Amino acid sequence: MIQYRVAEIGDEVGIHGLIRELAEYERAPDSVINTVESLRRDLFTDPICEAFVATSEESIVGFALYYVSYSTWRGRCIYLEDLYVRPEYRRHNIGNELFELVRNEAVKRGYKRMDWQVLDWNEPAITFYKKQGAELDPEWINGRLYFD
Amino acid sequence: MIQYRVAEIGDEVGIHGLIRELAEYERAPDSVINTVESLRRDLFTDPICEAFVATSEESIVGFALYYVSYSTWRGRCIYLEDLYVRPEYRRHNIGNELFELVRNEAVKRGYKRMDWQVLDWNEPAITFYKKQGAELDPEWINGRLYFD
Repeated sequence: MIQYRVAEIGDEVGIHGLIRELAEYERAPDSVINTVESLRRDLFTDPICEAFVATSEESIVGFALYYVSYSTWRGRCIYLEDLYVRPEYRRHNIGNELFELVRNEAVKRGYKRMDWQVLDWNEPAITFYKKQGAELDPEWINGRLYFD
Repeated sequence: MIQYRVAEIGDEVGIHGLIRELAEYERAPDSVINTVESLRRDLFTDPICEAFVATSEESIVGFALYYVSYSTWRGRCIYLEDLYVRPEYRRHNIGNELFELVRNEAVKRGYKRMDWQVLDWNEPAITFYKKQGAELDPEWINGRLYFD
């Protein structure tokens, strides 16, 4: 039995574990420099982001983490930073449920757009997002600077 | 003589005009549903974003608008949503100066990354960002849902 709820203080440990799992799947395991402590602050004590979690017997098996972004064209939007379900819990609609929770939150707040990114080789994710009715647009390229 | 400063209340009118100019250049003139009034709120009275402006004789000729984003891998980042200089004021280093102001702000706050996006056909912008030492990565595709 899967349950869904807004992330609560203490969930940062389980979410951080899943963030690391997802980074491994995305072939970037060394990219996670964020710590459990900073995730706790960023979600709960000095929040910049929010999350929904899916739990099975009180263990977090999936999460959707998002924040409020801004488009000069459309105003406030929701940016879905991570959506992840542990491999052994897939094909039970958990990804769909988490995506719906974020989408409904965006609509409830009156935001005009929801954004995220997907790796061009991640076929299962691309198929999933197309089912959500999403527009997938390769015309915009990411620019990045890292400060270490 | 170009001057640079943090955007102040009242600047939303000039900035909004440049947002429309930039959308036209990006071949999406009808995409701007944001109004001057909502931009005023979003920058100043209930802020979600911030901006630097470049002025010539008190007229805004360029701007850089950004907000705090979040990476589950790196923590708080700065997202540069728009960087624009009016065509007749280009080749005077204004884009560089605005970019530097945002970059310095990100470093000052201890953020670990600065992100933005560029259209794949916008060669002048791509050349500009490469000069800034940026990584340009086409591997991530944008997913989007619109709520109208």
